[in-house]
Amino acid sequence: MHIFYTPDIAPNATHYMLSEEESKHAIRVLRLQPDDHIQLVDGRGGFYTARIMDAHPKKTLLAITEVKEEYGKRNHYLNIAVAPTKNIERLEWFLEKATEIGIDEISLIQCQRSERKEAKVERLDKIITSAVKQSLKAYHPQLNAMQPLSKLLSAAFDGQKFIAHCLPGEDKVSLASQLQLKGRCLILIGPEGDFTEKEIADALHNGFKPITLGDSRLRTETAALEACFEVNFLNR
Amino acid sequence: MHIFYTPDIAPNATHYMLSEEESKHAIRVLRLQPDDHIQLVDGRGGFYTARIMDAHPKKTLLAITEVKEEYGKRNHYLNIAVAPTKNIERLEWFLEKATEIGIDEISLIQCQRSERKEAKVERLDKIITSAVKQSLKAYHPQLNAMQPLSKLLSAAFDGQKFIAHCLPGEDKVSLASQLQLKGRCLILIGPEGDFTEKEIADALHNGFKPITLGDSRLRTETAALEACFEVNFLNR
Repeated sequence: MHIFYTPDIAPNATHYMLSEEESKHAIRVLRLQPDDHIQLVDGRGGFYTARIMDAHPKKTLLAITEVKEEYGKRNHYLNIAVAPTKNIERLEWFLEKATEIGIDEISLIQCQRSERKEAKVERLDKIITSAVKQSLKAYHPQLNAMQPLSKLLSAAFDGQKFIAHCLPGEDKVSLASQLQLKGRCLILIGPEGDFTEKEIADALHNGFKPITLGDSRLRTETAALEACFEVNFLNR
Repeated sequence: MHIFYTPDIAPNATHYMLSEEESKHAIRVLRLQPDDHIQLVDGRGGFYTARIMDAHPKKTLLAITEVKEEYGKRNHYLNIAVAPTKNIERLEWFLEKATEIGIDEISLIQCQRSERKEAKVERLDKIITSAVKQSLKAYHPQLNAMQPLSKLLSAAFDGQKFIAHCLPGEDKVSLASQLQLKGRCLILIGPEGDFTEKEIADALHNGFKPITLGDSRLRTETAALEACFEVNFLNR
């Protein structure tokens, strides 16, 4: 069944009209007919089944036939803060894979050694939406625009805070040994070239615990995905 | 330090001559000079440090100054058999990431629902080599050319055999609950559209255990990477 992302649907809606763009896609591209059924996700846990009442190519009218709330609700909360990669496709790949595996929030950070100074959130968000639909998620991960690392470090976060870096450090422990299950966590992943010593010191000063993600030398986006994988796996 | 992949180096070599292509890269592109040091990996666990004796742009001569054997040797053996994706870039991503995270062998399989009928092993192997160098691995994963699933199913394999599929099945258990640590395993990942019922039945008949990789609906290459993550994580 075809799936549409409809963030503006009201929780108790009995009917819904697809946007002009989605209507065109449904009727002109997918050639859906009256009485065909489609699925909707609202990005906030609502998973709807709907029947096409009026197959209008600009204003497709739907009758909601079934609603599931908190569909696929996760038992923990994960925010990964990552420095966008020089090659933006690597970040895009991470966003798609993290959405499939399970993530709540992605925060883009600007670090001292970041080679990329800007990232287009709107385009990146579309990649997340596409992965949401493809993997049948009812929750849409939140993507936060790029901010300086210092700002993120000093912001309040209700949960565990970790920094994954590659500098030698006796005090680094595995994420698995530290993670409180079913809790909330924020994990920092540095840019190509890693965090600077000062950035790490600032993070520790702000209550971030240093962690390692295993012995392999991982690219930025692989480290971010490894963290995502570990948190989801441990919370199963 | 720059790293080169030199599969033909003899284990006890005191000297080594870079190939014409690698010599050109070292001298013309990287502009290395006599007495500069580089690193070599042989793909079989040998990790060498070498000094440039003659910076010849076609025949760069090296003196081996240090050898580490069984560098980063893994405590288990993992073979993932995967159907190449329609979009070959998705398979390429998997090969790069699996090499970074840790894998010994990748077997390309042709399934009934495979949309892609061929895959150029030489090109794919170059992607693995590039990831080997980037992530400082001394072992080069082996890539096996595409073969029909039936052939792989009936071939001997000394270790645990699993099939990850998406059909409902009461008997599916998590990989984590079944995996014998520090052992050898072969995991089958199906094409977009999954294995057919007959393929699954044939696999079970040949001693493969059905497993699940969690509750998320994953793309082919994400499922393959999830399996790779799990096996490496559990064997840490």
